[in-house]
Amino acid sequence: MGRTSDAKEKILTAAQSLLELRGYSALGVAEICKTAGVPKGSFYYFFESKEALALAVLDEHWAVQQRDWVRVLRSEAEPLERLRQLFEETEAAQRAGQASCGSVSGCMFGNLTLELSNQTEAIRERLQQIFEAQVALVEDVISEALARGEVTVADTHEAARSVVAQLEGQVLFAKLYNNTSQLSALWLNCLALLGARASEEPRVAV
Amino acid sequence: MGRTSDAKEKILTAAQSLLELRGYSALGVAEICKTAGVPKGSFYYFFESKEALALAVLDEHWAVQQRDWVRVLRSEAEPLERLRQLFEETEAAQRAGQASCGSVSGCMFGNLTLELSNQTEAIRERLQQIFEAQVALVEDVISEALARGEVTVADTHEAARSVVAQLEGQVLFAKLYNNTSQLSALWLNCLALLGARASEEPRVAV
Repeated sequence: MGRTSDAKEKILTAAQSLLELRGYSALGVAEICKTAGVPKGSFYYFFESKEALALAVLDEHWAVQQRDWVRVLRSEAEPLERLRQLFEETEAAQRAGQASCGSVSGCMFGNLTLELSNQTEAIRERLQQIFEAQVALVEDVISEALARGEVTVADTHEAARSVVAQLEGQVLFAKLYNNTSQLSALWLNCLALLGARASEEPRVAV
Repeated sequence: MGRTSDAKEKILTAAQSLLELRGYSALGVAEICKTAGVPKGSFYYFFESKEALALAVLDEHWAVQQRDWVRVLRSEAEPLERLRQLFEETEAAQRAGQASCGSVSGCMFGNLTLELSNQTEAIRERLQQIFEAQVALVEDVISEALARGEVTVADTHEAARSVVAQLEGQVLFAKLYNNTSQLSALWLNCLALLGARASEEPRVAV
């Protein structure tokens, strides 16, 4: 049993890195197995389809990222400071990915949303759950900041979604230009979106 | 010659709708030809590869969208009003696409950026040119608004990129939820990003 569990992990690891590099449609089960170094029979022992594998990769990727988001967004730091740290960690993660594979691969959830959400309902639903969890984590922070009079938003849920949308949009540009410095605008844009212009800082990053 | 030109148009039209529905990798030349109703030989008479076809589709799609953006963003209306109109037309276009094919297909340029920009340099470059043209059109409007004292941005180019990033991010959510009402946040978010809170409107749409 030790060996088969190992094979499952190898398939998941290979699939995650291939998905990040090339998306879902470009990927074949044979290539995943070759990269993972496992026979094709193993694949269908663990996953009934490529879609089932993609769902497992999404779950695993979100489990890791969720721990990071929870650590940052539920820390003891002041609310807005936690958002700043989230953007810094996002930029650092994209930079690390670029250093290891040569190009900014972007956000796996955003990538698969644009590639697949109008093609497979199961993946669309999973991606909705993941983005809802992200928005909820950000919304909790915005609500705290609102209670402290640090932001002026009419609807904390919409505000959280706008912050995550801005994040996804800037990650898109980072991938387009293979340049993570695109992400430096996130913090001041977030302050602007939340009506949190505390100082004389310009609204949009230079 | 009339017939061959017709075949080229048919291939481009079929490829555009298939690309919007399913992305690039999921698409085969045989399927494009079948949908277009042309023999496979015609395909290679006009396009040397699937990549060459994708570039032609991008060019054609941008030629049409650019006309719309220029009409709206260089109109006689007040600068910020032109941006509002751009968002309204974007929402209307996504709604029309949803009505005709059952699902919000999103922005072809954003879709292909996330699917392909780290895979093919030719497509990445073309997408960069298109997004730069979009950002330049938005930047002209922001510069006019800045000259009139209606916005407070430190860097008009960065501000324009942030507005387009927000647009792409919200279109991603519209596609994820197959719901164009996601896009109603764009206008107030744009005002917030530009430091253009003229009235007591809340920063983020409800």
